[in-house]
Amino acid sequence: MTGAIQEMIDLFSRLPGVGRRSATRLVFHLLETSPDYSFRLGTALCEFHNQIERCSQCANISDQNPCPVCSDSHRDSTVICVVENVPDLWAIDSGGTFRGVYHVLHGLLAPLDGVGPDDLNIDLLADRVRNDGITEVIVATRPSVEGEATAMLIRQSLKDFPVTVSRIASGVPLGGELEYTDARTLERAIQDRKKM
Amino acid sequence: MTGAIQEMIDLFSRLPGVGRRSATRLVFHLLETSPDYSFRLGTALCEFHNQIERCSQCANISDQNPCPVCSDSHRDSTVICVVENVPDLWAIDSGGTFRGVYHVLHGLLAPLDGVGPDDLNIDLLADRVRNDGITEVIVATRPSVEGEATAMLIRQSLKDFPVTVSRIASGVPLGGELEYTDARTLERAIQDRKKM
Repeated sequence: MTGAIQEMIDLFSRLPGVGRRSATRLVFHLLETSPDYSFRLGTALCEFHNQIERCSQCANISDQNPCPVCSDSHRDSTVICVVENVPDLWAIDSGGTFRGVYHVLHGLLAPLDGVGPDDLNIDLLADRVRNDGITEVIVATRPSVEGEATAMLIRQSLKDFPVTVSRIASGVPLGGELEYTDARTLERAIQDRKKM
Repeated sequence: MTGAIQEMIDLFSRLPGVGRRSATRLVFHLLETSPDYSFRLGTALCEFHNQIERCSQCANISDQNPCPVCSDSHRDSTVICVVENVPDLWAIDSGGTFRGVYHVLHGLLAPLDGVGPDDLNIDLLADRVRNDGITEVIVATRPSVEGEATAMLIRQSLKDFPVTVSRIASGVPLGGELEYTDARTLERAIQDRKKM
């Protein structure tokens, strides 16, 4: 309807999960709140991509290089957890149980989408295993066709190194109801049963 | 976890309807898309409040004064539709049926929240009715206690002018199921029945 407001709604509605209706609501909310907030968010957005870089060790994304995880001397830097992307790294790290370091692939093997072995950050992982005294690599890609294929590829690429390669467990999620768990997950849960 | 990304998530999660989880998703989406988009959205946000002003005639918000509605010579400027806020104006105008002009109150009478008659944009409405040859004022505030009270206040403040003051109809919404319509709406629908 009117230039600047309409443009703002258009821009907001390009964000994932933000439809036209919520974009409109967001923009009118901004109109009613202090210009300070819009200005802070705007400035942060303009500077965002310049502040952010990939960690040269693990390819995590942050405003430091090496990233805060790799720079943390309290971590066990001989155990690497391999993840698909940065949100997955955050998800595992916020649990607080795993205190090793990470390696971010920035993708999973997906030949149909044109993602081959060379498009993933695997060479650098092999370099780390070769040079940094790594004792274990935990592959924490998701339990899907792509995730499993990527896990196999990683195991294959590390087969000549004296390193343990492990895979995260899959099965019924904690608190999950067996009744509502899909057949393949149940099958896996039984297959991978543990002696009590 | 890491400065710039965390700050961005904090800023996004202050938007209405955007929780921490969706803010995180938005920020990682930005990281994966072109910096151009972040920069455009950022620039637009920084300039937003400076570009926007209230129309001196109808108090609509836009980047023009008078606003695009008031400047549109194809509209019938003798019929004013009074609305609570700008989103309501957009909602009515996008229908395309109403081709008059608007008057935005920027609120409804709410004594308990400290909003009295003087906090609404009613004096300016009376001025327009007095000076601009207005023939009809349609009060399109919502059918709630505050909306009805505001409508009464407007009728009262215009009682000395030779102008028709009307109220939008309320009743069962089109396509609505009577079974799921609340009792007060049904009561109103019967009360305000129209001869066929």
